[in-house]
Amino acid sequence: MNDGMIFETMLNVTNQMYNNRGEAVVNKRPTPIKILQTRGNLILKAAFDGRSTVDYDGVVQGRMITFEAKSTIEETRFDLNMIARHQYDYLSRCDAQDAICFVLVFFIKRQSIYLIPYELLKEYWDAADAGGRKSIPLVDLERRAHKFGTAGRAPVDYLPHVKKIWFEG
Amino acid sequence: MNDGMIFETMLNVTNQMYNNRGEAVVNKRPTPIKILQTRGNLILKAAFDGRSTVDYDGVVQGRMITFEAKSTIEETRFDLNMIARHQYDYLSRCDAQDAICFVLVFFIKRQSIYLIPYELLKEYWDAADAGGRKSIPLVDLERRAHKFGTAGRAPVDYLPHVKKIWFEG
Repeated sequence: MNDGMIFETMLNVTNQMYNNRGEAVVNKRPTPIKILQTRGNLILKAAFDGRSTVDYDGVVQGRMITFEAKSTIEETRFDLNMIARHQYDYLSRCDAQDAICFVLVFFIKRQSIYLIPYELLKEYWDAADAGGRKSIPLVDLERRAHKFGTAGRAPVDYLPHVKKIWFEG
Repeated sequence: MNDGMIFETMLNVTNQMYNNRGEAVVNKRPTPIKILQTRGNLILKAAFDGRSTVDYDGVVQGRMITFEAKSTIEETRFDLNMIARHQYDYLSRCDAQDAICFVLVFFIKRQSIYLIPYELLKEYWDAADAGGRKSIPLVDLERRAHKFGTAGRAPVDYLPHVKKIWFEG
């Protein structure tokens, strides 16, 4: 398994735990595929379709939640080009509708996860568009993102942070 | 195009209009597919995967919205077996998280659409499970579902009904 798949598996287990406990309903969004040829239940020819959304979405206490999950081998920064522009645009549109929007970044070598709220992402994204740096430095993630480890009550226990930021903030 | 595809196309146009107007972000959820063999960007072998959700979801004013869309050639009833049990279960779980959950039914011969809130669906579903009738009669949809035509400001203009039921109700 590659690093991305490990994080995805950890997230899927986490979402299943939340679901079982009745805490949230969050699912991985399937990759859009254009089906070209089938035989019965088998697809013989298909192509990856343009992605218009991000990887995960669902509901927590009525609010829509949507996020993209990434792993990185970098140790000191999160490269903005790990998020595609159409994904950023999708987060923007959902944020404008008052959804809970963020990015989860797994720093593999540190075994640390940072929840980056859309607001913080937007700040760096706008700056990059204006010719500024193309990454968020770890030092700013430490200060302004929400850090947690993999040893919580779920492999990627992001929900307590979501509640703190969006429901108690 | 078959009837189901026509309704899907009408819904996709509607969602695009809502999106352009900044009124809601709702998308068709891709069909989950297990990819078995690829060559470059082409998928050579794949299979339909078990569905765990319903067809449409997104966000309106912060609230998660999720619904299944069906067309029927029946004129006097909506057959409950048009909704798979795992789809009903998914709506139940989202409803428990306070999402906006419903079914849209397009009665092709009448060119009428009914928005059936989860609550009404649940009532008939539970009754069917207890041995009762396996459909919702049109007469009860007329009374308790929310009916609209295809001549609104969008082909399937469900949003005004969502707002009336969930935001002003």
